[in-house]
Amino acid sequence: MNSKVIPVKTVERLVLYKRLLRDLLGKGEQCLYSHQLAELAKNTPAQVRRDLMTIGYAGSPRKGYGVQELIDRISEVLEETREHRIALVGIGNLGRAILSYFNYKHQGLAIVAAFDSDPSRTDRVITGCRCFHTNEFAAKVKELDISIGIITVPADRAQGVADMMVAAGVKGVLNFAPVPLSLPEHIFTDRIDITMALEKIAYFASRK
Amino acid sequence: MNSKVIPVKTVERLVLYKRLLRDLLGKGEQCLYSHQLAELAKNTPAQVRRDLMTIGYAGSPRKGYGVQELIDRISEVLEETREHRIALVGIGNLGRAILSYFNYKHQGLAIVAAFDSDPSRTDRVITGCRCFHTNEFAAKVKELDISIGIITVPADRAQGVADMMVAAGVKGVLNFAPVPLSLPEHIFTDRIDITMALEKIAYFASRK
Repeated sequence: MNSKVIPVKTVERLVLYKRLLRDLLGKGEQCLYSHQLAELAKNTPAQVRRDLMTIGYAGSPRKGYGVQELIDRISEVLEETREHRIALVGIGNLGRAILSYFNYKHQGLAIVAAFDSDPSRTDRVITGCRCFHTNEFAAKVKELDISIGIITVPADRAQGVADMMVAAGVKGVLNFAPVPLSLPEHIFTDRIDITMALEKIAYFASRK
Repeated sequence: MNSKVIPVKTVERLVLYKRLLRDLLGKGEQCLYSHQLAELAKNTPAQVRRDLMTIGYAGSPRKGYGVQELIDRISEVLEETREHRIALVGIGNLGRAILSYFNYKHQGLAIVAAFDSDPSRTDRVITGCRCFHTNEFAAKVKELDISIGIITVPADRAQGVADMMVAAGVKGVLNFAPVPLSLPEHIFTDRIDITMALEKIAYFASRK
C-alpha cells in the first residue's frame, strides 16, 4: 500500500485532515465520523471515506474514526517519521521572512541551510539557519543530505538556481520567484506567488 | 469588453505576461511574437493569442506585439490604474514577514493597515504600516477604503477573522491560515499554505 504513489490532490487533503485532527486531539476529541471531518475540511463524507480507503484505514461504523490512530496512519503514509532536509536559495526580504517564519517549527521538515551569491548576505546565522555562498551549494546538499530546495531569488535568476538544484541532486522544488520554471519530469515542483494571488483578488474584488 | 469578467486562469496568465513583458522592456525589447511570449510563460502560442484576443489586443503579423502597448492594455484591463487597499489581520511571525516583504513594493496594491487582538502587537508601525487593535477593524476599513483582507492568524481564529472582514465590507480575502474558510459566494478568495506545499513536495521528493 505504502509503495503506491498517492495522487497530488489526495496528499493535499491528507495533510489537511492530519492538521484538523491534531487540533481536535488538542481539544480532547478522541473519535469522529466521516461527516464531521468532511465538514471541517469543507468537502464531502464520501470524499473523506475514499481518501482514508486509499491509505488503508477504515473506522468503526459505531464509533467512527479514532483521532490518534488516523493521525498516526496519515503520518506513516506520508513518511513523516523521516526528516526532510531543505535548502533555501535567495536570502533577500522574502527568503529571510520564510526562514524566520518557518524554521524549527515543523515536525519532519527543516531548513538546514540558506544560500546567496552576495557575500554580504552569507557567513551568518538567521534564526538558527546557517547561510553560505551559492558556490558551496552542491557540496552542502551532499554533506547535509538535502532533498528539497526553496527558491526565493528574483525572477531572472530563478531558472539558473533551479538548474543548480537539480544538478546537485535535489528532488523537489518550491518556487517563490514570479516565473514558471523548466524542470525535468522526475522533479516535483510547486509555485507560490503572493503578488499574483493579490493581483488576482484585486481584479475580482473590484468587480464584485 | 472591460465590463466582462475574465476567468481566473486567464487573469493569472495576464498577470504573468505583464511581468514577463516588463522584464523584456527592461532589457530593451520592443516587439515580440506570440511564440516567444509562450516560451517565456511555458504555455503555447495558441493560448497566448486566445488570451490577448480576450482583452481585445491583436499584434501585427509582421512585427508581432508591441511590448509597451501590451503592458498598457493588460494594466488597463486589470484596472491597475486604481489603487487596491489591503488590511492584514494577524501580526505574528508570518504577518510581519508579509508586511516587510510586500509593503510599498507593488504598484496598485498597498497594505495600509495591520490588526491584531493582542494589544502588545498594536500601536506601532511596521515597515510603514500602522498596526491597530482588531476592535477598530470595521471603522478603519471604511476610513481607509480597504477592499482586500489578508489573514495571517492561527487556524482556529481564521474563520472568525474572515467573518469580520466580510461584515466590514471587504470584497476579497487572501488566506494564509492552514484551514479552508466558509465565505459568501460574492467574496473572491484564495489560499496560500506554505507548510502544505512543503509537506506535499516532501512526500513526492522522497518517492522519486
